[in-house]
Amino acid sequence: MTLTRKLSDIGFIGLGVMGQNLVLNLADNGYTIAAFDLNNDKVQAVVAQDSLENVTNISNTPRVYGCSSYTELLSQLKAPHLIILSVPAGSAVDEVCQHLINAGIESDDIIIDTGNSLWLDTVAREKKYKSNFVFFSSAVSGGEVGARFGPSLMPSGSVDAWARIKPIWQAIAAKVDASTGKPITRTQPGQVITEGEACTDYIGPAGSGHYVKMVHNGIEYADMQIICEAYHVLKSTLQLTCHDIADIFSTWNDGPLNSYLMEISVEVLRHQSTDTNTPLVELILDKAEQKGTGLWTAVSSLEVGCPAPTIAQAVYARSISSFKALRTQASTLLAAPQQVSLSPNDQQALIEQLHDAMYCAKICAYAQGFQLMKLAAREQEWALNFASIAKIWRAGCIIRAVFLQSISQAYERNDKLANLLVDDFFSKELNARQENWRKAICHATMQGVPVGALSASLAYYDAMRSETLPANLLQAQRDFFGAHTFERIDKAPGEKYHVQWSSKARATVLVNEGLRSD
Amino acid sequence: MTLTRKLSDIGFIGLGVMGQNLVLNLADNGYTIAAFDLNNDKVQAVVAQDSLENVTNISNTPRVYGCSSYTELLSQLKAPHLIILSVPAGSAVDEVCQHLINAGIESDDIIIDTGNSLWLDTVAREKKYKSNFVFFSSAVSGGEVGARFGPSLMPSGSVDAWARIKPIWQAIAAKVDASTGKPITRTQPGQVITEGEACTDYIGPAGSGHYVKMVHNGIEYADMQIICEAYHVLKSTLQLTCHDIADIFSTWNDGPLNSYLMEISVEVLRHQSTDTNTPLVELILDKAEQKGTGLWTAVSSLEVGCPAPTIAQAVYARSISSFKALRTQASTLLAAPQQVSLSPNDQQALIEQLHDAMYCAKICAYAQGFQLMKLAAREQEWALNFASIAKIWRAGCIIRAVFLQSISQAYERNDKLANLLVDDFFSKELNARQENWRKAICHATMQGVPVGALSASLAYYDAMRSETLPANLLQAQRDFFGAHTFERIDKAPGEKYHVQWSSKARATVLVNEGLRSD
Repeated sequence: MTLTRKLSDIGFIGLGVMGQNLVLNLADNGYTIAAFDLNNDKVQAVVAQDSLENVTNISNTPRVYGCSSYTELLSQLKAPHLIILSVPAGSAVDEVCQHLINAGIESDDIIIDTGNSLWLDTVAREKKYKSNFVFFSSAVSGGEVGARFGPSLMPSGSVDAWARIKPIWQAIAAKVDASTGKPITRTQPGQVITEGEACTDYIGPAGSGHYVKMVHNGIEYADMQIICEAYHVLKSTLQLTCHDIADIFSTWNDGPLNSYLMEISVEVLRHQSTDTNTPLVELILDKAEQKGTGLWTAVSSLEVGCPAPTIAQAVYARSISSFKALRTQASTLLAAPQQVSLSPNDQQALIEQLHDAMYCAKICAYAQGFQLMKLAAREQEWALNFASIAKIWRAGCIIRAVFLQSISQAYERNDKLANLLVDDFFSKELNARQENWRKAICHATMQGVPVGALSASLAYYDAMRSETLPANLLQAQRDFFGAHTFERIDKAPGEKYHVQWSSKARATVLVNEGLRSD
Repeated sequence: MTLTRKLSDIGFIGLGVMGQNLVLNLADNGYTIAAFDLNNDKVQAVVAQDSLENVTNISNTPRVYGCSSYTELLSQLKAPHLIILSVPAGSAVDEVCQHLINAGIESDDIIIDTGNSLWLDTVAREKKYKSNFVFFSSAVSGGEVGARFGPSLMPSGSVDAWARIKPIWQAIAAKVDASTGKPITRTQPGQVITEGEACTDYIGPAGSGHYVKMVHNGIEYADMQIICEAYHVLKSTLQLTCHDIADIFSTWNDGPLNSYLMEISVEVLRHQSTDTNTPLVELILDKAEQKGTGLWTAVSSLEVGCPAPTIAQAVYARSISSFKALRTQASTLLAAPQQVSLSPNDQQALIEQLHDAMYCAKICAYAQGFQLMKLAAREQEWALNFASIAKIWRAGCIIRAVFLQSISQAYERNDKLANLLVDDFFSKELNARQENWRKAICHATMQGVPVGALSASLAYYDAMRSETLPANLLQAQRDFFGAHTFERIDKAPGEKYHVQWSSKARATVLVNEGLRSD
């Protein structure tokens, strides 16, 4: 006897690591899912995993139903259809959308793209598919564990679609204790957490959620690079072992540097390879890979005119690492500085300096990311709520840390804050540590350890706190060779000047008319 | 009685600073020009200047004929028409092309875009106008003086069009003494230089010339920022006057730092304001402006995956300078380090260290720019000749310097050179100066002067000469949170590994199938 299956609540397409775990998260929270992937093995895997986990299966029906085509998927869903995509960014998103159009998706149906799409593609897709269905997007951060037990979710698009999606997103998102900003951990299948604040909130019009997620990833690149630089200094100049460094990082993780990335770095450094019984991390090839979101953030910062040197340095550090053969060749040709060994006291001092350097650099990286979102939002006419964005990042995502609670408080104190560096809390944190930050950089500089992210952050700090920068000379150079004009501090703002700088070689050159000259 | 005018050799549209000077340069070299600009005052200005300069006017006809419309311009030209554009990058180029199509331009006519167009736009335009006319592009560097007395010219597009343009370009381009690499200077109207090597050569297919020029400008940003940082350190930590700094720069300009930009910096620093009788540069507002080519270079480096941190830092330094109000606010909130004063001996030592820091940072900036062109050329399938490009930049352009002769020699020694840092000459230059470079950065770091370009260059140098970078930890982090996999140094290249890093919280998460695990 064949049972008539009830229609599923949600359709899900794309069952890679993120997709499979999101499906199980949805199932834990009481939703039934019709799941499809071009690779049927992946469909079977998630169905099998669901039946393993679904131990209290009262109705004797699976929470996840595996589909073998787009048409079957649509036929298995309640109307209006709600379909979540977790497919690679780029053309795959459009291919799936086209298949769903062919399979008969309707104009009040909603497709939610949860991949790492470029935000500009999202903006374009919302327009492109307007007559076919509602294209909504929600960035997801948290890797596979986040997807499974509570990610950070950054939804954007139509407000009406959000009203329908909101309860689902609030259910599956990570939760935090609102007063402490600490995550409420969920680690077991079947577990559901209903208290706390959900790490999701409506970000804004189409594309804004993916933009915010892109900046999250840019900051993540910087965070990771800062940790790597500290590891490099400790390893190369103090000759510490992975276990020593894990102990230091573990202590730091109890202070202001506390974060998920520090926590996993400790675990990584302590992980022994089962086949060699040495730290596995030492066997890993030092060529970093990247998927694009970090570089998109740096590109956007350049286009928007927002200084984000720490983030860009982190992206470049990955590129440099990828040129392993060139580095190996260069290592035999280029000179290292003289090595010095530090006294035990100086070693201890260096460790503290390095801690402060990491913390200050981290503040700069976040200051850059938040200022970037502010400038982009102005350009795009998005009304972003930065306190809310910081809250969303307190749990679930890769950069989660109690530190985000401080950022959220800074924007709650002043929602017009131009830059985190001029917030009271953060300026005090920096002021207390800037001398140590400088010492750590000088140590690395003299010992030949590249600390691009730490030092780019310091140059950022020092430039930001400089009432006067040498750009006066630069403007003079530009005016000299290109008649680009300049303003004067002793004249009215906005008045442009151009002078004939040189007595030589200029008398006969035609110059701009109509400019005041000195 | 009305004389029948002879038809002009070349049409010229866009009579801004660059355009007017290019027109007079063409006239000096024996070409007659029909000139047009939407602003008739500019047409009259160039015609008037020509009649002033054309003192040996034998035939009693002007070399430059002013036109009042696109149609008149075409009617005044020999066929097939050759028309040079010097209009702002962007939509203006297409508007002028469309006007010329409407005015009856024909398919064997050539339009040469000499503006600062984005190279991708140039690629698109060559295709777009294929059926209407030949769209050729030639980047121009050298500012107004270069345009007037010999610019550096980077032409690209159809080889057939180049055959027609080549003699004109060779005539108007800057010239260098081939053996010394030094410019043969031309400073007077009417002067024509026929000996020496012309600073122009066919670069490659459409867009490649503008790409190369874009990278030139990215390097120029870095060069300028490096000079500004040295000026800042000398001014702020040694309390030197503009005249003191001009003297130091002038001495440096006699050594390996010799360049046009150093030369004009000396002139700028010595220029007194006529109304205050103080150095004019000190009255200039320290907000740097930019027109886009520097940021395009940084964007391209990120997209191509080429590390170019010095160039990006130079772009960011300009953005930071533009936030003057924020900086002024931050200067009251953020702490400066303790200031120390140096003994006269230490001051002298610092000046030498700074010289070496500038030279090393400059080598790194050029290494980044040339590697970027190499990687972009691979992607675009352009066969760029780097020795030739370096030669083109020896005179005429803004970054002109004898230094380019050394780069050209490096690529002549090895046209497959992966990076200038591994060239014999440059590695030796760096090795001899790296200790001083470090000391200069530490001085600035401890004294709170932002030296983003100097220190980003050092991080680049130190990373490039590191056989082992901390990207192993980064790859482990990525595998931990995102199952992104890694390679092992003790296993076969290309084999991907993924492990379950943590004993906590992972057993129940679905992970990628089909990967070897540790």
